[in-house]
Amino acid sequence: MGKVLIIGAGGVGNVVAKKCAQNPEVFHEICLASRTKEKCDKIAEDIKKQYGIEIKTAKVDADKTEEVVALIKDFEPDIVINVALPYQDLTIMDACLETGVHYLDTANYEPKDNPKFEYKWQWAYQDRYKEAGIMAVLGCGFDPGVTNVFCAYAQKHFYDEIKTIDILDCNAGVHGHPFATNFNPEINIREVTQVVRHWRNGEWVETPPILEEDSIHFTFNYPEVGPRESYLLYHEEMESLVKHIKGLERIRFWMTFSDEYLTHLRVLKNVGMTRIDEVEYEGCKVVPLKFLKKLLPDPSELGISYKGKTVIGCIFDGIKDGNRFKKYIYNVCDHAEAYKEVQAQAVSYTTGVPAMIGAMLVLKGVWAGKGVFNVEQLDPDPFMDALIKYGLPWKVEDFDGELPEF
Amino acid sequence: MGKVLIIGAGGVGNVVAKKCAQNPEVFHEICLASRTKEKCDKIAEDIKKQYGIEIKTAKVDADKTEEVVALIKDFEPDIVINVALPYQDLTIMDACLETGVHYLDTANYEPKDNPKFEYKWQWAYQDRYKEAGIMAVLGCGFDPGVTNVFCAYAQKHFYDEIKTIDILDCNAGVHGHPFATNFNPEINIREVTQVVRHWRNGEWVETPPILEEDSIHFTFNYPEVGPRESYLLYHEEMESLVKHIKGLERIRFWMTFSDEYLTHLRVLKNVGMTRIDEVEYEGCKVVPLKFLKKLLPDPSELGISYKGKTVIGCIFDGIKDGNRFKKYIYNVCDHAEAYKEVQAQAVSYTTGVPAMIGAMLVLKGVWAGKGVFNVEQLDPDPFMDALIKYGLPWKVEDFDGELPEF
Repeated sequence: MGKVLIIGAGGVGNVVAKKCAQNPEVFHEICLASRTKEKCDKIAEDIKKQYGIEIKTAKVDADKTEEVVALIKDFEPDIVINVALPYQDLTIMDACLETGVHYLDTANYEPKDNPKFEYKWQWAYQDRYKEAGIMAVLGCGFDPGVTNVFCAYAQKHFYDEIKTIDILDCNAGVHGHPFATNFNPEINIREVTQVVRHWRNGEWVETPPILEEDSIHFTFNYPEVGPRESYLLYHEEMESLVKHIKGLERIRFWMTFSDEYLTHLRVLKNVGMTRIDEVEYEGCKVVPLKFLKKLLPDPSELGISYKGKTVIGCIFDGIKDGNRFKKYIYNVCDHAEAYKEVQAQAVSYTTGVPAMIGAMLVLKGVWAGKGVFNVEQLDPDPFMDALIKYGLPWKVEDFDGELPEF
Repeated sequence: MGKVLIIGAGGVGNVVAKKCAQNPEVFHEICLASRTKEKCDKIAEDIKKQYGIEIKTAKVDADKTEEVVALIKDFEPDIVINVALPYQDLTIMDACLETGVHYLDTANYEPKDNPKFEYKWQWAYQDRYKEAGIMAVLGCGFDPGVTNVFCAYAQKHFYDEIKTIDILDCNAGVHGHPFATNFNPEINIREVTQVVRHWRNGEWVETPPILEEDSIHFTFNYPEVGPRESYLLYHEEMESLVKHIKGLERIRFWMTFSDEYLTHLRVLKNVGMTRIDEVEYEGCKVVPLKFLKKLLPDPSELGISYKGKTVIGCIFDGIKDGNRFKKYIYNVCDHAEAYKEVQAQAVSYTTGVPAMIGAMLVLKGVWAGKGVFNVEQLDPDPFMDALIKYGLPWKVEDFDGELPEF
């Protein structure tokens, strides 16, 4: 049905490329591009070996719109899947706009020097994408992405009105390193050191960052993995969900962290290693967080020793025909199984598979539209079917457990 | 009596310069030199204000013997006090040899790329210093330095034969930062992440580094500050003491660390920030430990908020006239009082004062000799008197407490 250009050859890019290659009836031609072409070539080699399919590779600096434009003009894709760095969302969106090609990403734009996860910069493309007759699908990974689709699905099938949503993201895996982040450490650490926000009654409520002593956390008993300490955190899908799920009174996001992870993070913050400003070092300008990234294990290489599971889902509380009840929709993904299939741990897998599915639905014309869309604005049903078919089966359960009330 | 050239303008250099300036009858002229001349000028300004004395300042790269030689030829000192980096001991010793000037330092040489604290490189100058008719006094800070003098004093006055020595180094101060080192973080961290050694029955015994779960530690009840967890550590003065204290059966060194300090150090080691090899970062070569130093509080600036005390001393077990007994000689130094006097915390103060005293004894001809000397080879009595006079009073007590036996 079409040609796909994937930009970014990290852990997620590897998964997207392989999942696309598994579905050649949809993805006729694949090009994988990155700043480091060798990374793309390595993945292309795997794909050739595993699926007997040739994919193209290319070198591109996604910070530069003109380089992306040139690559698009050369390869002529029908859609660009952006799994590069969130800083690069806008340059890639600009390139798609200039060339009239659909766009899909998994994480919203944030300025490099200011860790602010906000959709405003990307939503600002609405009119221009509409005029150009092309579609941008924003945040189509797992969270954001699948969690948004779960919300749209719950809204469509279970409730007249959803009152509260709690998104719970648990990684119960063990990678064998004293400290590592599951995706780009730069992005991961910026995310978890932010001020925490959740939304209630029409406004954002700030609470202490996870490293503070008075941070908000509770023990949730996750399916298949058991109880884990879960910390209130700001996460970007909440920003679009409060706009698109009508009648919502509260939405919160929780993520599990081990004590060891928090200790490492606290120390790194204490000594200044999470700073994102430049520090003079023998005539060089060094950004501590970017330097830290050089020292930490490459998230795309954690997979080989990763054991355990991720459990990510949403708990809804709402009303249908006058009855109030709770539902829990979630996926469980196994690190070792993901690695066996595509040589990636579950955090990359759960982000890459939905990106492939979103692109597939766009190429098939099942998801169609002009302008900029968050995934909960699109029909959840074909996406939910595809999740089961392509490796991320989900369950729905009645939920009668407790959640913190505050 | 003479002219002194002080090389190094960190926390210790500041103390040495000020203590020399307090004794103009001995130190007729002072020159303070460092890679960064501004640091010297700042200290010179303080000295002018506090003591009404003008000292000279100079820029010198102590990695380069020829620069040190040029400075010595220009200033013509009678002694060089080296309180620069331990990597620079040999270049400065070479310069003193070339110009025929006495040398004194506070920490033994170690190669930059190999954290090995050993005297062998400096002891190798023995014949050349002898021939040149000059004196090198090695390790004349607190530990090494005062602890060695305590040993020589105990040997001279209390014992026929010392059987065991336990050196106990406690910093019970609080600086108000989540993590900081009390002297150059590069040197401090290299020291504390080393394999631990102590000496017994003629050989070095290795035990696990302080960060390991099975590291050796015990709670010692320090005078004036109370019980503190004290960790077995290798420390350089033991190498010369086992040579010069005859009949010794065991010598150990213990240092206090807080749980927070150890946690920070463990994390920094885990993530690779204590590495001393070069890491490629955007075209630059960055040594993690040296970069960490850029981020941590400057030890010379900890003083202003430092509260509490250091307690450093030696416990001896030995025989006199057939009787076996234990003695404890120690000094207590108060961070805030040291700061009040010379704008430095106690760790800098306790290192800088003995360096001044050693230089004073050499200039006065009280300590005289040709060749390379560790301080326990010289008469302890005038040094012990000077400690009391110049700010580091000590006590001797009978000791009847317990020390770990293993």
